[in-house]
Amino acid sequence: MVLDKIHTPHDVKLLMSPELNKLAGDIRSILLEKLSNCGGHFGPNFGIVEATIALHYVFNSPVDKLVFDVSHQSYPHKILTGRKVAYTNPEHYNDVTGYTEPKESVHDLFTIGHTSTSISMACGLAKARDLAGRKENVIAIIGDGSLSGGEAYEGLSCGATLGSNLIILLNDNNMSISDVNGGLYHHLQELRESQGTCDNNMFKAFGYEYIYEEKGNDVTAMINVLRRVKDIDHPVVVHIHTQKGRGYKPAEVNREDWHWSPPFVKETGEKRRPMAGENYDNLVADYLLDKMKQDRSVIAMCAAVPATIGFDKAHREVAGDQFIDVDICEQHLLSMAAGVARNGGKPVVATFSTFYQRAYDQISQDICINNLPVTILIRNGSIWAGNDVTHLGWFDMSLFTNIPNLVFLCPTNCEEYFAMLDWSIDQKEYPVAIRIPRGKVIHTDKPVQKDYSDLNKFLIAKEGEKVAVLALGDFFPIGEDVVSAISSELGFEPTLINPRFASGLDYELLSRLTENHTIIITIEDSILDGGFGQKIASFYGNTDMKVLNYGLKKEFLDGYNAQETLVSYGISSGNIICDIRGIM
Amino acid sequence: MVLDKIHTPHDVKLLMSPELNKLAGDIRSILLEKLSNCGGHFGPNFGIVEATIALHYVFNSPVDKLVFDVSHQSYPHKILTGRKVAYTNPEHYNDVTGYTEPKESVHDLFTIGHTSTSISMACGLAKARDLAGRKENVIAIIGDGSLSGGEAYEGLSCGATLGSNLIILLNDNNMSISDVNGGLYHHLQELRESQGTCDNNMFKAFGYEYIYEEKGNDVTAMINVLRRVKDIDHPVVVHIHTQKGRGYKPAEVNREDWHWSPPFVKETGEKRRPMAGENYDNLVADYLLDKMKQDRSVIAMCAAVPATIGFDKAHREVAGDQFIDVDICEQHLLSMAAGVARNGGKPVVATFSTFYQRAYDQISQDICINNLPVTILIRNGSIWAGNDVTHLGWFDMSLFTNIPNLVFLCPTNCEEYFAMLDWSIDQKEYPVAIRIPRGKVIHTDKPVQKDYSDLNKFLIAKEGEKVAVLALGDFFPIGEDVVSAISSELGFEPTLINPRFASGLDYELLSRLTENHTIIITIEDSILDGGFGQKIASFYGNTDMKVLNYGLKKEFLDGYNAQETLVSYGISSGNIICDIRGIM
Repeated sequence: MVLDKIHTPHDVKLLMSPELNKLAGDIRSILLEKLSNCGGHFGPNFGIVEATIALHYVFNSPVDKLVFDVSHQSYPHKILTGRKVAYTNPEHYNDVTGYTEPKESVHDLFTIGHTSTSISMACGLAKARDLAGRKENVIAIIGDGSLSGGEAYEGLSCGATLGSNLIILLNDNNMSISDVNGGLYHHLQELRESQGTCDNNMFKAFGYEYIYEEKGNDVTAMINVLRRVKDIDHPVVVHIHTQKGRGYKPAEVNREDWHWSPPFVKETGEKRRPMAGENYDNLVADYLLDKMKQDRSVIAMCAAVPATIGFDKAHREVAGDQFIDVDICEQHLLSMAAGVARNGGKPVVATFSTFYQRAYDQISQDICINNLPVTILIRNGSIWAGNDVTHLGWFDMSLFTNIPNLVFLCPTNCEEYFAMLDWSIDQKEYPVAIRIPRGKVIHTDKPVQKDYSDLNKFLIAKEGEKVAVLALGDFFPIGEDVVSAISSELGFEPTLINPRFASGLDYELLSRLTENHTIIITIEDSILDGGFGQKIASFYGNTDMKVLNYGLKKEFLDGYNAQETLVSYGISSGNIICDIRGIM
Repeated sequence: MVLDKIHTPHDVKLLMSPELNKLAGDIRSILLEKLSNCGGHFGPNFGIVEATIALHYVFNSPVDKLVFDVSHQSYPHKILTGRKVAYTNPEHYNDVTGYTEPKESVHDLFTIGHTSTSISMACGLAKARDLAGRKENVIAIIGDGSLSGGEAYEGLSCGATLGSNLIILLNDNNMSISDVNGGLYHHLQELRESQGTCDNNMFKAFGYEYIYEEKGNDVTAMINVLRRVKDIDHPVVVHIHTQKGRGYKPAEVNREDWHWSPPFVKETGEKRRPMAGENYDNLVADYLLDKMKQDRSVIAMCAAVPATIGFDKAHREVAGDQFIDVDICEQHLLSMAAGVARNGGKPVVATFSTFYQRAYDQISQDICINNLPVTILIRNGSIWAGNDVTHLGWFDMSLFTNIPNLVFLCPTNCEEYFAMLDWSIDQKEYPVAIRIPRGKVIHTDKPVQKDYSDLNKFLIAKEGEKVAVLALGDFFPIGEDVVSAISSELGFEPTLINPRFASGLDYELLSRLTENHTIIITIEDSILDGGFGQKIASFYGNTDMKVLNYGLKKEFLDGYNAQETLVSYGISSGNIICDIRGIM
C-alpha cells in the first residue's frame, strides 16, 4: 500500500504521480472497511479523497491553514495527517472523532460540526495573519450544500474585501444532505455546465478571482489548480466538481442514503441497522401525509434533513407542494414559516435540536413576538441522541423555553405526542415547539388529552404524598422508576407528575402540593442551567419545600456513553432515593 | 396639503401626478416636524417616501402584501395607511411604534425590528397564497444594508424557486447604518454604475428577473416600474437607487449620524441630546485605541454598529486595519472572531444585546466548544436600554450564561468594567462576554481586581448577617439600596455581594452563607427564567435557606417605561423589604 509510506503530510509531497492515484485507492479501501463496520459520513469523504491529497501535496499544513466546513469530510485529511491507524486498526477506530478536532492533531484548527462557517473562520485566520505580518495560505474547503447557509455568503462578502491571501475551495458535488433546491443551485449548475464560463458569476460579482476545475476527482488536475493559487495575494474561489460517494457503486447511485450510513455489508451495500419497524419517523411521516390530504393548508418544512420527519423521496412526491426543503437555511426556514402562518397556512417545521440553535432569533422575533401558530418539531433533543460535541441535544430546552409566548411541549409517549401535534397544527393561538420523543416508541392505553390550550397544566399521573416527582418527556420513565422505588424502599406512595409543558409552571398545582408534600424531585433530559427544574426551585424559594433538580450538566461532552453519563449525573432511581433519604 | 386627502391607501390612487409629488413633500415636512421633536430613524424614511407612495398607488394593500425589512423605514407607509395623526398631532405621537405593528393596522403584517428577514417572510406569504390558490402580490422591501445579513441570501435562494409571484424591491441607498463594506457592495455599486447592465448579476444568477431603476426618488418612475411587475407570475428583483436622508440637507451630507437621530433643531440640524461628557462609549473607544497602539494583535470587530464601542469615523481611521466592520453579519462576526483568536489575534467583538441573538450558534459552537479567547462586549443588555419589543436587552443573560465554557461578566462600575475588559483581552484561556454597564458612568475609589481567571468568585462588598443580597451588574445599586433599607428599617446589617460572574456559582461562598444567613435575595437586570437567581434557588433547594429572586418577567413589552416596569416587577427596596418581613 502506498499509504504505508504516509506518516505526515510531508510524505505525500514525496510521492510520484502514479503513487498519488494509488494513494487515493488505498484511502478509499480503508475508509470502506472502517465505515462498513462503524458507519459514518460516507459520501462526503469518498468524494473528496483526491482533493485532500492535492491539498496536502501543494500546501504545508499546519503552517498553511486548512478549514473544513462542517468537517464531516475530513476523514481523508485525518488519514494523511498522522491518524491513519484510527482507520486501519479496529482497536483504534475510536481514537478519532468524525469531525476535525484540535485535540487530535495540529492539522485540525477547529472542532466543527455545523455548516457554513468555514469562510468566516478563514477570514479570521487571514486577518490575524495579516496583522502579524505573516504570509501563510488560508484555505476554506466548503461543499455546495454548506454554501446555502446564510453565514457562508456573509463570509464570502467579507472575504472579498480583506485584500490578501484567501483561498476558497468550493467542493461541488451537486448535493446537500438530501437534494439541493434553491436558486443558488440553479447558478452552480450553470457554472458546472459551462465549465465556469457562464454569465452572471456570483463569485466574480463579489470581487473574487474565480477558477473552475471540472476534474475534482483527478489528483493531477487538482494539484495543478491548487498550485496556481498557492501564495496568491488576493481572494480566489476554486470551484471543483466532484462526485459524492465516488468509488463505491451503491453510494454513487443513492447519494441521499449514503450521505451518512450506518454499518453495512461491504460487498452489497446492505445496511446493517435498517430503521425497520415502528419508529417515530415513520409514524410522523404517515400522520403528516394524511393530515395534508385532509387540509391543503398544512405544509411540512425542513432544512436539508427531511429524514427528521421520515420524509424520503416517496413521501416528498406524495406531499408535492405541501412539502418544502429550503436547503441548509434554518434562519430562513423559521421566518418563512412565520410568513406561511401569517397568510393562513399551517406550517410544521422540523429539524434537529442542535440545528435550531441557528434560528433562535427568528423563533424569538418572527414567530414568538408575532405570536404566530407555527409548529416546531425538535428531533434529537435528548441525551440519547447524537453524542458528538457539535450535535448535542441538551441545550434546546433552556434555549427555547425562556422565549415568551412559545409553548414548549414534552410528550411522554406516542399517543400524547400525536395529540399534541394535532392540536398544535390546528390551533391559531400559539407558537408551539414539541420535542419528538426519542428511542423506542412507547404506547399508552390511557386516554390522552386532545386540547392543550389551557396552558401549563401539569398532569398528575399518580396521586400520592410526601414526595412529588416531576419528570419531563423522555425522562418520564425514570420518574416512574423513582416512584416505584420510593414505594418499595421508603414505604409510602409518592406523587408522579407529567408536566407536559416545559415553558411555564402550573402554579395552582405546585401550590397545592405544599399541603401534603415536603420534597419535590424534578427530572429533565436537558442541562439544568436555565431549565425546568430551576424554575420550580425558584417558585418554592420562599417556602419550606425541598426541591431537588436532576438533569444534565452544563458542559460539552464528546463521544459520551449516555447510560454512564446519566449515572455520573446522579440520574438514577438509586441515587435519587439516596438523596431523598438524606433529607427525610 | 395633499396629505389632507389621504385617509386610506386607496386615496393615494386617486391623486394626479403633480399631487403625488406634493404628497412626498407633505410627508417629509410632517416627518421633519415629528422627528425633530421626538427623534427616530431619519435617513431610511426620508429616502423611501416616493417608493412608498408608488407602492400604495400601484398595489392594493392589505390584499397585496407588503413586508418592510427591519421596518424602520415604514413611517411613510404608516402615514398613508390611516395613521397620519400619529405624525401630525403631538398628542398622538406615541400612538405608533417605530416599526410595523399588526396591532396598529391591517396594512402591517409583522412586528419586525431585526434585519434581513423580509424575503423569507415574503416567501412564506407567497407559499401560503399558492397553497390556497389565491393570486395577491407579495412584495418584500429590503434595503442594501439589510441584504448583507445571511438570511437575506437564504431567502433569495429559496424565493427564486417558488415559481410564482414574488417581488423583491431592493432599496439601495449605498449605506448601511454606517458605511457598507463587503464584496456585496462592490457588486451593488457596479450594478448602480452600469444602470443594472454590468456582468455577473447575482440576482440573475439565482434565477430572478432583474430590473434596475435609477430614479428611486421619482414617484412617476417608481409607479412605472412597479406597474411593470404587478401581478407578475415569477420572482423578480426591482433594484432601485435612492438617497438616504433625501430632502434634508444635514441628513444628506452626514448619513451615518442621521440614520437614527435624537431630537434636533429643525433649522440647523443641531442635535438636542448630544452624547456629551463622559460615557462608556467614549471611554471604551479611547481605551481600545490605546490598547491597539500597544498591541498589534488587538482588533475591534463590529457588525454595522461601530457606535457600540464609540467608534466614529475618526476612531476608525486611527484604528486602521485593527478595526473591521463586517456589515450586518453577526454570525460571520463571531465565527471570524473565533478565527482571529485561533491564529493569535485578540478580537474584541461588540454589538447590541438583541443582535447577538443572531449568533447564539456561532458563540456556542465556534467560540465556546473551541474555548477560544474572544472578548464579547454586550451593549444595551438592560431594562434601561431600547424599549422597542424587537430590541429588548433582557434575554442575553439567560441565553448566553447557559453555554458551557463562556465566562459571562457583569461589572458594577467603570473601573471594574475596564479591569475585566483588560483581563479578558490579554488572557488566553476563556471566551468572555462582558455586559457593558448602562447609563451614567459610576466610579469607585476602591481598588478593583485585575485578574478574573479564578472563575466564579463572588465579591463580598459588605459582610453582614441574616440576609445576603446578591445584586448583579447594573442592578448592584438596587442591592445597595436594599441593604441600606434593611439596616435602617429592620435593624441589622445584611451582607451585600457583587457576584461579578453570571455564568457560574461560587459554591464555597454560598455554602458559607448558610452559617449565619437565612434569606438570600438575588437581583438581576434580565428575565428570571433561565437566569442567575434560579440557579441560586436550585443550589439551596435541599437546604432551609429561603431564596427570593428578583428580575424581569418573561414577556415581550413594547414602549415600556423602565421605572414603572421595575416597580410592577417588585424590583424596589420597599417591596423587597416587605417580602423579607413576610418571611422573618
